[in-house]
Amino acid sequence: MALPAPLTGVVPPVCTPLTPEREVDVDSLLRLVDHLVAGGVHGVFVLGSTSEAAFLTDGQRRRVVEAVVGHLGGQLPVLAGAIDMSTARVLDHVASVAAAGADAVVVTAPFYARAQHPAEIARHYRRVAEKSPVPVFAYDIPVSVHTGLPVDLVLELAAEGVLAGLKDSSGDLAGFRQVAGGVRAGAGPAGFSVLTGSELLVDAALALGADGAVPGLANVDPHGFVRLYRLAPAGDQDGAPAEQERLCALFGMVGAADPARMGPGSAAIGAFKAALHLRGVIDCPATAEPQIPLAPAEVERVRAFLAAAELV
Amino acid sequence: MALPAPLTGVVPPVCTPLTPEREVDVDSLLRLVDHLVAGGVHGVFVLGSTSEAAFLTDGQRRRVVEAVVGHLGGQLPVLAGAIDMSTARVLDHVASVAAAGADAVVVTAPFYARAQHPAEIARHYRRVAEKSPVPVFAYDIPVSVHTGLPVDLVLELAAEGVLAGLKDSSGDLAGFRQVAGGVRAGAGPAGFSVLTGSELLVDAALALGADGAVPGLANVDPHGFVRLYRLAPAGDQDGAPAEQERLCALFGMVGAADPARMGPGSAAIGAFKAALHLRGVIDCPATAEPQIPLAPAEVERVRAFLAAAELV
Amino acid sequence: MALPAPLTGVVPPVCTPLTPEREVDVDSLLRLVDHLVAGGVHGVFVLGSTSEAAFLTDGQRRRVVEAVVGHLGGQLPVLAGAIDMSTARVLDHVASVAAAGADAVVVTAPFYARAQHPAEIARHYRRVAEKSPVPVFAYDIPVSVHTGLPVDLVLELAAEGVLAGLKDSSGDLAGFRQVAGGVRAGAGPAGFSVLTGSELLVDAALALGADGAVPGLANVDPHGFVRLYRLAPAGDQDGAPAEQERLCALFGMVGAADPARMGPGSAAIGAFKAALHLRGVIDCPATAEPQIPLAPAEVERVRAFLAAAELV
Amino acid sequence: MALPAPLTGVVPPVCTPLTPEREVDVDSLLRLVDHLVAGGVHGVFVLGSTSEAAFLTDGQRRRVVEAVVGHLGGQLPVLAGAIDMSTARVLDHVASVAAAGADAVVVTAPFYARAQHPAEIARHYRRVAEKSPVPVFAYDIPVSVHTGLPVDLVLELAAEGVLAGLKDSSGDLAGFRQVAGGVRAGAGPAGFSVLTGSELLVDAALALGADGAVPGLANVDPHGFVRLYRLAPAGDQDGAPAEQERLCALFGMVGAADPARMGPGSAAIGAFKAALHLRGVIDCPATAEPQIPLAPAEVERVRAFLAAAELV
Repeated sequence: MALPAPLTGVVPPVCTPLTPEREVDVDSLLRLVDHLVAGGVHGVFVLGSTSEAAFLTDGQRRRVVEAVVGHLGGQLPVLAGAIDMSTARVLDHVASVAAAGADAVVVTAPFYARAQHPAEIARHYRRVAEKSPVPVFAYDIPVSVHTGLPVDLVLELAAEGVLAGLKDSSGDLAGFRQVAGGVRAGAGPAGFSVLTGSELLVDAALALGADGAVPGLANVDPHGFVRLYRLAPAGDQDGAPAEQERLCALFGMVGAADPARMGPGSAAIGAFKAALHLRGVIDCPATAEPQIPLAPAEVERVRAFLAAAELV
Repeated sequence: MALPAPLTGVVPPVCTPLTPEREVDVDSLLRLVDHLVAGGVHGVFVLGSTSEAAFLTDGQRRRVVEAVVGHLGGQLPVLAGAIDMSTARVLDHVASVAAAGADAVVVTAPFYARAQHPAEIARHYRRVAEKSPVPVFAYDIPVSVHTGLPVDLVLELAAEGVLAGLKDSSGDLAGFRQVAGGVRAGAGPAGFSVLTGSELLVDAALALGADGAVPGLANVDPHGFVRLYRLAPAGDQDGAPAEQERLCALFGMVGAADPARMGPGSAAIGAFKAALHLRGVIDCPATAEPQIPLAPAEVERVRAFLAAAELV
Repeated sequence: MALPAPLTGVVPPVCTPLTPEREVDVDSLLRLVDHLVAGGVHGVFVLGSTSEAAFLTDGQRRRVVEAVVGHLGGQLPVLAGAIDMSTARVLDHVASVAAAGADAVVVTAPFYARAQHPAEIARHYRRVAEKSPVPVFAYDIPVSVHTGLPVDLVLELAAEGVLAGLKDSSGDLAGFRQVAGGVRAGAGPAGFSVLTGSELLVDAALALGADGAVPGLANVDPHGFVRLYRLAPAGDQDGAPAEQERLCALFGMVGAADPARMGPGSAAIGAFKAALHLRGVIDCPATAEPQIPLAPAEVERVRAFLAAAELV
Repeated sequence: MALPAPLTGVVPPVCTPLTPEREVDVDSLLRLVDHLVAGGVHGVFVLGSTSEAAFLTDGQRRRVVEAVVGHLGGQLPVLAGAIDMSTARVLDHVASVAAAGADAVVVTAPFYARAQHPAEIARHYRRVAEKSPVPVFAYDIPVSVHTGLPVDLVLELAAEGVLAGLKDSSGDLAGFRQVAGGVRAGAGPAGFSVLTGSELLVDAALALGADGAVPGLANVDPHGFVRLYRLAPAGDQDGAPAEQERLCALFGMVGAADPARMGPGSAAIGAFKAALHLRGVIDCPATAEPQIPLAPAEVERVRAFLAAAELV
């Protein structure tokens, strides 16, 4: 389908269900997509961080995007991560997901490689955009790549037409506001899309100009985020904060695992997958290696969060 | 060839010469390997950070390891980096380089993925070693992966036989000494190899127990590092420091580029490749995208470092 | 005066005007306080980061708090920073500012000292609160102390009555929301005050439960922040965003200086003081050593920001 | 006494014994100084990080330097830390310790304050040196101040005569070597002193040009470090490594405490003080607030390290 410009609404980063042997479980993946569609989402983002893209082999990545694109059949826009260390490697992923039918690609700053000077980041996005057959979204995720995208740089690349949008997972809402404001003020092409990845601040981000949200927790409760998206810009001062607060409480599940046993990534992805398993959406809650699996008591804590939100 | 245990001596991380179009220049690569062999090195390490592994596509990586293994024909051990974000992706590279004939693989902690809890790092190396057909070296490079390998963890994995050696690019010589001492004291299998990646401290590392060195600058001056390797453990208190100081001065070339124009990676790799080009070893000094090329005046500064070391 | 519980409204961190010789310019300081009072602020915060507390000697700090407390004569609550590395040093400042009449103290986590384990931070606040004659606010400022205050820790210390409030300069609005929500849900004493230090997000912070704001930019435009404070909770969906956007544009002055010449602190404090000087509030825009002064062209850029906001 | 130029030898950063009420225990402090003198040290460094300077009040700092200077009576040079956030505050400490008779001051880059641009750091040292009545040593301690001192900056300030020496606690032996080499090559005044703070690398640092060492562990075993200092430059290839390895093993005591209970500072200072208490040098092992005290089982682990080194 043609990508709306700007892309708006709730665009969940789709979890990648795995079998116990850590192969992509396509049946569960498609059930998850159906669950999101039923929740009313406005697009899907495959192969993002919540999708465990960093853990999937190239073959597994291809399987995911082909399955989702084929299943949706143009019903909703599909964004696909092209997550890799540097320009040429990213372009291989771009070619692969575009061939599989993705409507746009989502690309981080270079990482591992020490090519994180603003001039190097700009060159990276320009080279990627030159060769990409589909629009390029910048993915600002300093927790993973260990550098942020400067506001000025994003606005400059938007104005050049290099970038079609921003997926902001920086946690820096002030910087996000500056990008949104800059775009509104005319930096950037018409239709530049500003999306927040902060599930705890979707209401605030919408209030200050976000076009939409990419909340990992929307895997678990797409209906809640879609309700929030509808309430917030309408200025419903009772409904929107209440819905957001309910989702904030639900998000507490990412703290269900013992932080002495595992890092925050294993805990968060593990909780989302456990919740999807408990809700009957996916067959197996396994996360990719080398993430640590949740213990039974930790899964019970996830269940308690679902119960409090009346989701089980 | 059978990998010596421990692997000792000078094992340069081989630069990857590129054409102006950023394809692997195999002819130049083999001339560079010949230059290293002529310098007396004891092994080569392809697809490391100095090799721009983070910038090479999978196809380019394969081309490099096949060309070098084929060219050396067992004359010297070939280590190959299997640099990627997480376990399954690393294992794909391991399979590829082992099939091409690499004698060992060099593997970092997970990166990008937030799977950097010690339990997750340990699980990563255990899973990789279970499936790797060749020995696994740990690659400690916090500047790229944003976590270090704790001394205790390295010694534990050495004792289990998971790791065959350590390539230390942490800059933390005190931690390096603790690993070397622990190995000597019996933690770790017989033949565990402790290699330093700090070209400015090769003499010091050898004095405190390193088996060898993996100096990026050895691309430019392999003879110098081989001389240093021979002098140092012999306790030659005149020759070793003098040779090391000469190499420290030569290393100044990594500061030839203007730090306002590019990051330290572009500057260092750019300088090494400029030097190899000036010395007539490779045809083109291009570095991979999105690294910034050295300007002519910066190249002249590299030439001055070579001249001071009587290398041009 | 008795400190309101919770403290609400706009509580600017008061700049500390200096003479060209870098002594406290008390006349200018009191004019600045009058300017803030005329703007309608609800309290003042002296000896915070924007006040250059880190640069002032103990004698200068004492002079500031005595002058401001004496001048206000109980008209408004006065919070005072007690910024130092560790417990006993902080307590010396607490005694000094409390003796001078401050109504509350604002205290960071330990810094420089490597005592930043959650157990050490908790012990620090407990020891300080035991001996402080006035209420203690936690000051969350990771950019300066290089650790954040975990949400759970703040809520635990609030529930114990150790803390009377939080001054949040973390930039992490999601964490801020979790503290505000936790306090509302009953963690913390009645009257616990949650204040944001993010001048670009005052509307958003108020919408999600902030009691007030501590914006450095309010030195320059107190009237604007007081208007915003009144509009925001009233749900004025036209006025509040417009006022906040105006202030965001004005805040652009912190980028007036050339980042190649100085760090972001020199640039921000230098811009605020230049603006106060240009507005005629203070006699001299000097900042404390070793901060770099703004050059004339940079001051002109500050003037342009003021002009655009119709403040000169 | 006149400060030797360069200052050479073993210059321990003297622990500050405290009473159970956390007051300076002057009797124990002087016994500790006698213990160091008996061990043959070449100077003492009071009010450094190992001295818990960051935790001591101004009154306590003054007591320490007056007691030690008075006790030594010119027998050995006394360096004193002037550890504070910025120029004016540092100068107050400089005045205080110089008045008390310190022979030199040791000064870090600005911290807390965001004045860490190279131009700001240089300005800081220049202003301090202009007003200091005694020579100024730079203290490179990124773990505390969160920035390193660039090699070029140190050499530039040395050449200007601003700095009389460097106390390097960066852990970056390559950078240390570059400073030592630059000084030898004529950057810096005659007599510039290059001292390492890395107790695990004293032999290596001496081999590559250090004038001396400032090892925290020398509180516990001054004799060992003095022996090492004598053996190392003599090129005693049996004795020096053996002594250094013995000291490395002894240093293991900093890991005696449970890292889940406290940070690394509490653990290290706690271990040194426990060891001094077990050896009968000081009356009470208390560390300053808010550091966590070692538990009895952890103290027993410290005792085991002492026993293995035949020090109890």
